[in-house]
Amino acid sequence: MSQYRVLIDANDEKGLVHKVSTVFYKHDLNILSNNEFVDKENNKFFMRSVVDGDIDAGELERSILEVLPKHANVDVIEPKKKNIILMVTKEMHALGDILIRHEAGELEANILAVVSNYDTLESLVSKFNIPYKTISHEGLGRSEHEDKVLEYLAGFKDIDYIVLAKYMRILTPRFVEAYENKIINIHHSFLPAFIGANPYKQAYDRGVKIIGATSHFVNNNLDEGPIISQEVIHVNHAYSWRDMQRSGKDVEKVVLSRALKLALEDRIFVYANKTVIF
Amino acid sequence: MSQYRVLIDANDEKGLVHKVSTVFYKHDLNILSNNEFVDKENNKFFMRSVVDGDIDAGELERSILEVLPKHANVDVIEPKKKNIILMVTKEMHALGDILIRHEAGELEANILAVVSNYDTLESLVSKFNIPYKTISHEGLGRSEHEDKVLEYLAGFKDIDYIVLAKYMRILTPRFVEAYENKIINIHHSFLPAFIGANPYKQAYDRGVKIIGATSHFVNNNLDEGPIISQEVIHVNHAYSWRDMQRSGKDVEKVVLSRALKLALEDRIFVYANKTVIF
Amino acid sequence: MSQYRVLIDANDEKGLVHKVSTVFYKHDLNILSNNEFVDKENNKFFMRSVVDGDIDAGELERSILEVLPKHANVDVIEPKKKNIILMVTKEMHALGDILIRHEAGELEANILAVVSNYDTLESLVSKFNIPYKTISHEGLGRSEHEDKVLEYLAGFKDIDYIVLAKYMRILTPRFVEAYENKIINIHHSFLPAFIGANPYKQAYDRGVKIIGATSHFVNNNLDEGPIISQEVIHVNHAYSWRDMQRSGKDVEKVVLSRALKLALEDRIFVYANKTVIF
Amino acid sequence: MSQYRVLIDANDEKGLVHKVSTVFYKHDLNILSNNEFVDKENNKFFMRSVVDGDIDAGELERSILEVLPKHANVDVIEPKKKNIILMVTKEMHALGDILIRHEAGELEANILAVVSNYDTLESLVSKFNIPYKTISHEGLGRSEHEDKVLEYLAGFKDIDYIVLAKYMRILTPRFVEAYENKIINIHHSFLPAFIGANPYKQAYDRGVKIIGATSHFVNNNLDEGPIISQEVIHVNHAYSWRDMQRSGKDVEKVVLSRALKLALEDRIFVYANKTVIF
Repeated sequence: MSQYRVLIDANDEKGLVHKVSTVFYKHDLNILSNNEFVDKENNKFFMRSVVDGDIDAGELERSILEVLPKHANVDVIEPKKKNIILMVTKEMHALGDILIRHEAGELEANILAVVSNYDTLESLVSKFNIPYKTISHEGLGRSEHEDKVLEYLAGFKDIDYIVLAKYMRILTPRFVEAYENKIINIHHSFLPAFIGANPYKQAYDRGVKIIGATSHFVNNNLDEGPIISQEVIHVNHAYSWRDMQRSGKDVEKVVLSRALKLALEDRIFVYANKTVIF
Repeated sequence: MSQYRVLIDANDEKGLVHKVSTVFYKHDLNILSNNEFVDKENNKFFMRSVVDGDIDAGELERSILEVLPKHANVDVIEPKKKNIILMVTKEMHALGDILIRHEAGELEANILAVVSNYDTLESLVSKFNIPYKTISHEGLGRSEHEDKVLEYLAGFKDIDYIVLAKYMRILTPRFVEAYENKIINIHHSFLPAFIGANPYKQAYDRGVKIIGATSHFVNNNLDEGPIISQEVIHVNHAYSWRDMQRSGKDVEKVVLSRALKLALEDRIFVYANKTVIF
Repeated sequence: MSQYRVLIDANDEKGLVHKVSTVFYKHDLNILSNNEFVDKENNKFFMRSVVDGDIDAGELERSILEVLPKHANVDVIEPKKKNIILMVTKEMHALGDILIRHEAGELEANILAVVSNYDTLESLVSKFNIPYKTISHEGLGRSEHEDKVLEYLAGFKDIDYIVLAKYMRILTPRFVEAYENKIINIHHSFLPAFIGANPYKQAYDRGVKIIGATSHFVNNNLDEGPIISQEVIHVNHAYSWRDMQRSGKDVEKVVLSRALKLALEDRIFVYANKTVIF
Repeated sequence: MSQYRVLIDANDEKGLVHKVSTVFYKHDLNILSNNEFVDKENNKFFMRSVVDGDIDAGELERSILEVLPKHANVDVIEPKKKNIILMVTKEMHALGDILIRHEAGELEANILAVVSNYDTLESLVSKFNIPYKTISHEGLGRSEHEDKVLEYLAGFKDIDYIVLAKYMRILTPRFVEAYENKIINIHHSFLPAFIGANPYKQAYDRGVKIIGATSHFVNNNLDEGPIISQEVIHVNHAYSWRDMQRSGKDVEKVVLSRALKLALEDRIFVYANKTVIF
C-alpha cells in the first residue's frame, strides 16, 4: 500500500472530476482528501487528491493523463522528505525558526546546507550539524558571486527548494531560471506595498497602521513573484521603524515557515503569477 | 437551464465522489464548484456541489440517492430568497446591519417580520417597511410569552431561518425543537468562554486581552449549540467593560451577518453539535 | 464643572509634562486620562488630556500656552456633537453603517446632510430624515461640479468633518485646501498598495492573500493622505475580485466608522503626513 | 548618566502626575517615555516612566515616595539582563523560540538553566551551552519531585523569572508562593476557555472556529492567573485536533515570547488578578 499526492492542472472541461475519480475508483484507491478549483477567468482546472492503494506511481500518472484533455499536467508524488537549501545573510530569526522546526521533526525536509555571503550565522548552524558555506561577495561582481553559489549548489544532486531566509541579495535571472518556482523568499512587507530596500523604513515614513510580511516564489521582477502567504500585525505612532522591524520579525518567520510547509506538502500550484493553494 | 446547490451527507465509503460525479456527468451537468470533506473520526462524508444543467430538481435528487449508501441525505436546492424572521430586544447594531444589507440587496432573503419583547426598535424597522411585532413579556411567564411568539410565527407559511439579533431572552426547548437548526444566535463572547449573562463584564473581570463574538445555531443548552463563525478583537487594561461592550458590537454584527450569509447560501452542515462549512 | 479635552503639540523640551500637569494642578483640575508621545525623530511632543473642573476653556488654554515653548498649539475642546457632511456615490454599506450608528446614538455627531453625484441613495437617507442633496456631475467639468458642491456646503455655518463614505470622485486641491484635515476618506485597499481605481481588481490580479481597507485624511495626492486606521482580511485563490469586493465591504465600513469615531472624540493629531492617535 | 525605568502604583488622588513629574523636573531628568493609567473601579493609579539623568536610583526612589500617598509602591529599575530559568517537558517549539531569541541577542536575559522532568530536550539545549537539568518525576510524589526542583533552583542566587515553556506539570501552592508573580506560563488555549488538560481536544470537540494561546502569571488556581498576552488563529471543520495542536504551536511560542519580553522590559503591573501593561 502506497500513499500518493496527485496534482492535476488542465484546461477545464465538463466531467474532469468524474473522469479522475473514475480512475481512482477503478484502481480501488481510497481518497483521503480531495480539492478542486476552477479558475473561470482562465478556464483552468486544478485538483489535488491524496489517495492510497496498491498501484505504481507511474501507472497511476499514465492512467490519469489518458482521461485528461491535451496539455494537462499530472504529478503523482510519493510523500517523502524533500531536499532544501537555505540561503541567509546575517539575521537569525527566520533561519532559527526553520532550524528548530527541522530539529523538532516538524519539516518534511532534509536541510542539505546553509549558504550565506557572510559567516555570521555559521556558529548557529554548526550547532545543528548542518553544512554552512560562506561565499563572500566582497570584491566580486553580482555575476561572479552567483557563479560561485551556483557552482556550490551544483554539487548537490537533487534540490527541491531553495529558501531565502532573509538573503539580502538580488538574484539574477540566470539563477532564478535555473530554479524556477523552486525559490521561496520572505519579503518583509505586505506586498505589493513597499517593494525593495528597507520596507520598514518605508512603512514608518508612510505612517501605516499595519505592517506585514509576504512569502513568495522568486521570479525576475523584484518582489513580484507569486505570493504564497501573507500575515500582518497592527502598529501605531509609537513604533519607530526599528520597533517595526523587531515586531515584524515574528511575522516574517511564521510566514516563511508556513510557505515552506505548504511547499513541502505539495499544496501549491503556480500559474499566471499567482498561487492556488489546497 | 437551472442552477442547483447539491448537499450530500452520508456514511463514508470508497467511491462516493466517483459515484456522485458520474451522476452529474450522465445528466450533462456543469459543476460550478465542488467541496468534499470526510470526518474520519465519525466516518462521515460531506459534499456540496453547485451545478447547472437541464434537469428537474426531484429527478436529480433521486438519481443521487440511488448511488449513495443507506441513510444518506441529499438536498437539491434551487437558489432563491429565503424567508427569515428577526428577533431582537433593544440593541440596534446587529439588527441595523442586517436591515442595511437587506436594503442593499446583499442578502438572499425576505425579512418577513421583526419580533421583539420591546417596542424600542419599531421606529427603525418601520422605516424599512418591514412588519414589527412587539410581544411584551411583562407580566407573563416564559412559557406564556413564548406561546404568543410561537402563535405569531405560526402565521407565516414558511420560515427558513430565525435570526436572534441580540434577542436577550432564553428560548425554551419547545421553541428550539420547533425550529431545529433554523435559529441562528449571536453570543457576545468567544464561546465557550463566558457563557450566559453579561459576558463583557465577565471578560473584564477576568482581565482578558482579547474579546470576541460567536454565531451559532441554538440548541437546548444555553450558548452550546453548533458554532458557525467567530471573530475577535484585541483589548487592553484601559478598556472598561462598557468599552469592551462598545467595541464588541462591531464584531457581533459582522459575525452574525457572516453566519446568516452562510446559511442563506446553504453552505452549512450541522452534525455532532458542530458545523461543516463550505 | 466642565469636562475638556486638551490637545497639545509642541517642540519637545525637558519638563513639558511637569509644566502642563502643574497648570492642571493649580487650577484644581481632575485628570481623567492622559497620553503623551514624543516623536524623537522630529523632536515633537504630543499630549492629550481629559480633565474636569471649574474653569473657563479660554482661560485654561491661555494658562497652558504660557508654559509651553514657542509655536506650540493648544486646543481646549468641550465635548459636544460635531457637525458632519457625508459624501457618497452609489454604494450603501459605508453610508448605512454610519446612519445606523447615528440612529443608535453611538456617534457624537449631527449629520447635516448627505451629498452625492447620484440620487441612488436618496431613498435610504430620507428614511432617517436627513437632507440628501444630489449634485450630478453629468455634463460638467470636474471644477464646475465641485463649484456646485462647494456652494452647497457653504450654506452650512459650521462643518467639522466631511466623510467620504465611498465617494468615487477625486477632489481638486481647491476643495481639499478648503477643508484641510477635515476630510476623511475610506480607500478600499491596504494603502499604499493599490492606489487608484478598482483596487480589488488590482489585488486579484496580483494574487494577494490578504486584502484591506484604509481610512485617511485627504490631501492633494491621491490616496496619500495621513492614515488613520487600517484593517485586513484573509482571502485565497477561490476569491474572484467581485468576492474580494463583497468581503472587503465589511472591512471598509468598520475602518471608516472607527476613523470617524476617533475624529469625533478629538483623538487624532496630524503632522508630517502621519497621525498620532491617543 | 543613567537610565531608569520607574514603576509606580498608588491609590489614586488628584495631582499624582504633577507631583511625580515635578520630582523628575527638579532632578533634571529627561523623560524618554511616560504612561499612566487610572483604574477608576479600584481607584488605583499606575505609572511607568523611562527617564535618564544624573542621579542615584535609591535617591530617586526616595524622592518619589515622598510625594506619593501612603501604601504606594515605587520601583526604580536600571535596565540590565534579568536572570531566568526555563522549565520544559518534551515539546521543542516554545523552548526553541526562546533559545534562538537568546542566541540572537533579542532578549534582555541570561538563561541560567533549563529544568525538565525528561531528558528529551537536553540535546537541543546543550548545543547552546546552557545547563540542562533533568529532574525526573518517575516514582516520586508531586511534593517530593518539587522539593528536588526547588532545591536545584535554590542554588541560583537571583532568579527574576521562571518561564514554563510547556512544562506539563501542575505546580503546588508552595512553589507558586515562593516565586509569586515571577512564573510565566503559556497555556495552549484562549483562556478562560478550555482550562486544564488537552485544550486542543476540547476545542475540537466543541467545534470552535478559532483557537488561541494565553500567557499568564501562575497563581494557585490552575490556568487562572493574571493574563499577560493572548493570540488566536482561525481554524475550520477540516482541522483534526492534531492539526489544531500543530497550528497552535506557532501561536503558543509567539505569545510566550511576547509575554517574556514584556516582563524583561518591566512593562507589567499585576493587581486584582489582572495585568496593566505599558
